[in-house]
Amino acid sequence: MKKSINIGIIGLGTVGRGVIQLLQRNRSAIEPRIAAQLKLRAVCDRRKSRCPKELLDIFYPNWQKVVNDPEIDIVIELIGGLEPARTIILTALKNKKPVVTANKAVLANHWSEIFHTARQFHSLVYFEASVGGGIPVIQAINEGLAGNCFSRIVGILNGTTNYILTQMAKKRLDFRTALHWAQKKGFAEANPKTDIAGIDTANKLAILSSLAWNIWIKPQKISVVGIEGITLMDVIFADEEFGYVPKLLGLSQVTSEGLLLVVRPFLVSKDHPFSKVDNEFNAIMIKGNAVDEVMLVGRGAGAMPAASAVVSDIIFLARQINSGLAGNLPYVSPDHKKHLRTVPSQKLVAPFYLRFMTVDRPGVLSTISGYLARSNVSIAGVYQKAPLDIRRRAVPIVILTHPAKEGNLRRALERIEKLPISRTRPVFLPIIKF
Amino acid sequence: MKKSINIGIIGLGTVGRGVIQLLQRNRSAIEPRIAAQLKLRAVCDRRKSRCPKELLDIFYPNWQKVVNDPEIDIVIELIGGLEPARTIILTALKNKKPVVTANKAVLANHWSEIFHTARQFHSLVYFEASVGGGIPVIQAINEGLAGNCFSRIVGILNGTTNYILTQMAKKRLDFRTALHWAQKKGFAEANPKTDIAGIDTANKLAILSSLAWNIWIKPQKISVVGIEGITLMDVIFADEEFGYVPKLLGLSQVTSEGLLLVVRPFLVSKDHPFSKVDNEFNAIMIKGNAVDEVMLVGRGAGAMPAASAVVSDIIFLARQINSGLAGNLPYVSPDHKKHLRTVPSQKLVAPFYLRFMTVDRPGVLSTISGYLARSNVSIAGVYQKAPLDIRRRAVPIVILTHPAKEGNLRRALERIEKLPISRTRPVFLPIIKF
Repeated sequence: MKKSINIGIIGLGTVGRGVIQLLQRNRSAIEPRIAAQLKLRAVCDRRKSRCPKELLDIFYPNWQKVVNDPEIDIVIELIGGLEPARTIILTALKNKKPVVTANKAVLANHWSEIFHTARQFHSLVYFEASVGGGIPVIQAINEGLAGNCFSRIVGILNGTTNYILTQMAKKRLDFRTALHWAQKKGFAEANPKTDIAGIDTANKLAILSSLAWNIWIKPQKISVVGIEGITLMDVIFADEEFGYVPKLLGLSQVTSEGLLLVVRPFLVSKDHPFSKVDNEFNAIMIKGNAVDEVMLVGRGAGAMPAASAVVSDIIFLARQINSGLAGNLPYVSPDHKKHLRTVPSQKLVAPFYLRFMTVDRPGVLSTISGYLARSNVSIAGVYQKAPLDIRRRAVPIVILTHPAKEGNLRRALERIEKLPISRTRPVFLPIIKF
Repeated sequence: MKKSINIGIIGLGTVGRGVIQLLQRNRSAIEPRIAAQLKLRAVCDRRKSRCPKELLDIFYPNWQKVVNDPEIDIVIELIGGLEPARTIILTALKNKKPVVTANKAVLANHWSEIFHTARQFHSLVYFEASVGGGIPVIQAINEGLAGNCFSRIVGILNGTTNYILTQMAKKRLDFRTALHWAQKKGFAEANPKTDIAGIDTANKLAILSSLAWNIWIKPQKISVVGIEGITLMDVIFADEEFGYVPKLLGLSQVTSEGLLLVVRPFLVSKDHPFSKVDNEFNAIMIKGNAVDEVMLVGRGAGAMPAASAVVSDIIFLARQINSGLAGNLPYVSPDHKKHLRTVPSQKLVAPFYLRFMTVDRPGVLSTISGYLARSNVSIAGVYQKAPLDIRRRAVPIVILTHPAKEGNLRRALERIEKLPISRTRPVFLPIIKF
């Protein structure tokens, strides 16, 4: 039994500083759990200015010092991005130091390399903070629900886009204004591309899926559509006509042909629990063959929720180090030999919300419905709205479909878009029905 | 590394048989996680008739055979109740065998003895299935959220009562009829007292609280009111006048004076996520000083959800046994020296729904409000309903209060009840506001 466990933190952004604060604030609750002292032995950042004054004597500008220090028991990587994060994690593992990280990008993109290295060097990588902020979803899939075979994981996994969509729906803001608000509130970065375009959601979905199906699912396998195309007009129609709200979801679903992996803005009925998950909150529904469906909800963004997850990982690792067994068994075993078929997103089956802007002329609806019918997309309802354009150059036509294949729908929409009656690109949003 | 881990199951009720089924069905997903074979070596029940035919060769009518078999690595206790469950668990631990149990009663009532014995003999007790069915809430509090200091735990913890209250609210059934339906559906036992009276909820709240605050909280410390007193009249008033639904909640809350522990039927606004947790579903909200509030929702009753939790515990223990370290560190450390003040339930502060049945005579309302005012209970709204009794012998008066102390309210109600204007005992339900 060690009397103290030494940790080194690399990256002193908001999460890094949150972790330092939390270790201090909750010391009296944390130390009895690990039956040892937890000592902050090194902190590291490119910018010395981010280091709290009282920690300047353990500040290092180079991460090499931290991952190679024989006194350090756990390395906390909180710089984000692919490099040097990847090298930091791999070097720490090769030095037999367990790693805690909040970095979804490096895990999603280097899953196999990271976990094979961990296994090879009998070390561990914990990453609860990488998905869902403070929600203990990694542990739920990997441990608490480990007795299940999973058939579906679906979640609101990105706080920034959920904040924007919530503001659009509740305050009737257009996308640009909502994004601007999110940036002012600190929920969106100056360059919000990774969030807005769904890349962050895809990375997180890749992590959850890799864990659930025990094989590396590369983010490139996921068909991703972001929220840039969501217009206020569609948010209003969906709400007022059908009681739906838009949510960017990551969805992994086992089908008879393999695993379907998509990130899409979906419409969600106001009866669905996801419809109440607003602003920076995240939610994940996990379906297993024994537990049925479990839902976890909590803050998906913010320094302290992420710090909660990082510190819980530290506690868990410290307990294992202290009982002398860290790394005896891998936390994650990526199986090289296994092959899991992924299904192209054209196979996604859902009812769809469609919105066309067309010339205001008799016969338009019959033309559109003819194209849809020929692609096997069957119409559940049509809502022709009063023209929004004062000069009546374009009128919106909203159609709800019965469950249809996204591939068939896309084919029909491509054709309709090229017709002279079309004024803009048709909008289509799948509707979640579970 | 062991090539196979042998388990013995004591108790072949629905959960026990569910575990056997699940181990079989998900074998191919389970074994890679533990890097060993999982072998069912013994099953035990008082009644041989409950043993599946194919397991008769490993059936034992006496639990002693199972807990003393040197070949058995993990003992699964699924008989429920206090004895012989307590003796089974303690004997297994003394034989250094880790135990998995779903038994909330024995844990809540013998917490300290069980976990001290586990520590003394370097063994472990896992009990994910004891609270919330398949929802991994034990693990969330003990591990995934371990970096937090907790300030509140509140949950719908009993599937039977939630089923009954849901049926009352949705189908407008009275209590007796709803209970009868629950019994027919298999959600309530022939003798439903433990569920209906809130005892099961109190046991589960004791477990969650003992875990969160790292000290044994005896169920006797919890002030418990069951759902027997909920009338259809109040369910209808609460819904139609205020949009509230009744839910039996267990609540542990840190206050400036100590820990407040109550089990009560509460009214929950339809905006609150708990209002959507219906029938046999359970939900738990956990508030920590870093993560803020996390909510977990899932099936709280049924053989397979419970089996999911039991099998996940088995996997986790088997991994530890296989790496040679099970029991090096206790899973739960009950701290004898710690003292946590509990606060009497009179200190519960909430807005209340009150319903009186009184004579139909001028001045009644002013009498009632006078008594309330003298007890420092301030009125937020009054709803005098048309008389329900045709002969107008009694009219209902419904009052919503501002937040008030339950103790003050009870004092006022006791006095009002004794007045000649009162026809029945006043009904009071706290309203949850977070």
